[in-house]
Amino acid sequence: MIVLGIDPGTANTGYGVVKGEGLGLVSLVECGVIRTRPRDPLSARLSEIYEGVAELLARHRPDAMSVEDVFYAKNVRTTVVLGHARGVVLLAGEQARVTIHEIPPAEIKKAVVGTGAATKEQVQFMLTRLLRLKSVPQPSDAADGVAAALACLMAARAPSLSTPRPRAAHR
Amino acid sequence: MIVLGIDPGTANTGYGVVKGEGLGLVSLVECGVIRTRPRDPLSARLSEIYEGVAELLARHRPDAMSVEDVFYAKNVRTTVVLGHARGVVLLAGEQARVTIHEIPPAEIKKAVVGTGAATKEQVQFMLTRLLRLKSVPQPSDAADGVAAALACLMAARAPSLSTPRPRAAHR
Repeated sequence: MIVLGIDPGTANTGYGVVKGEGLGLVSLVECGVIRTRPRDPLSARLSEIYEGVAELLARHRPDAMSVEDVFYAKNVRTTVVLGHARGVVLLAGEQARVTIHEIPPAEIKKAVVGTGAATKEQVQFMLTRLLRLKSVPQPSDAADGVAAALACLMAARAPSLSTPRPRAAHR
Repeated sequence: MIVLGIDPGTANTGYGVVKGEGLGLVSLVECGVIRTRPRDPLSARLSEIYEGVAELLARHRPDAMSVEDVFYAKNVRTTVVLGHARGVVLLAGEQARVTIHEIPPAEIKKAVVGTGAATKEQVQFMLTRLLRLKSVPQPSDAADGVAAALACLMAARAPSLSTPRPRAAHR
């Protein structure tokens, strides 16, 4: 089972492709960041994010796409613009007809570390251990994408750990 | 000059196509609503909005697209989900290489009625008068789409009235 994990953002959209290989083994196929230029108009940046995610879906043909589900409001405008990025990511997934899981940050932490209150460092530590990597994936947005993919894979194995909502409807 | 105005929403995305015919005359070409099913997953609804806007752009080949720019926070979750809808609308515009104007609600009111504090009824009254319609476009989401298109057209004629930001960059 191959999962594409996405951490959407208008500046940096992190992604990770993780493969479940049976016997509980998981391995990292690829990770990175889709970067957009701050001076470009929002529509152009959204187009780059959309094209980037569509390219990853076409190349890896994952069984599922796992997208971090963020609905906080530290800065409302930032959060709303983030919604724009998530919108085009979900659209790319829908068009590729891949199963989409939207997982809140706390569920990702719970699935990877065992507690929803885990720190970023704890998530990165577990992620590096589980995937048998020599170092933490860089930059941190890429690591967040990997964590989203990993959480989806772990949750698929131990449904009690987490409850990703497949293609959940929002009002 | 033909302008496609869009009032994005996950349930109902209103739209209006307005044509400037010289001598200050403006006329309504078409208006309506792209409806999505509340029970469908968000990704499917975003796909319908995207396809609907792309179809309008292909059919009318407007000179500009005017999108209501909403960043309020009455209900943060609703506002963020609205951001998803705006994201796929802007993507459709970018892919059609149309000039995109994002106009805040107050600017739309100012351009159509003359004051940013105008009520919805005042906007609908002026819109009906300016376009020489027998009645207000229904449903109200369609009227909001028409108002966005009209505001863009009026602002292009009298730049001092309003300042739509063409393809504005957001962080």
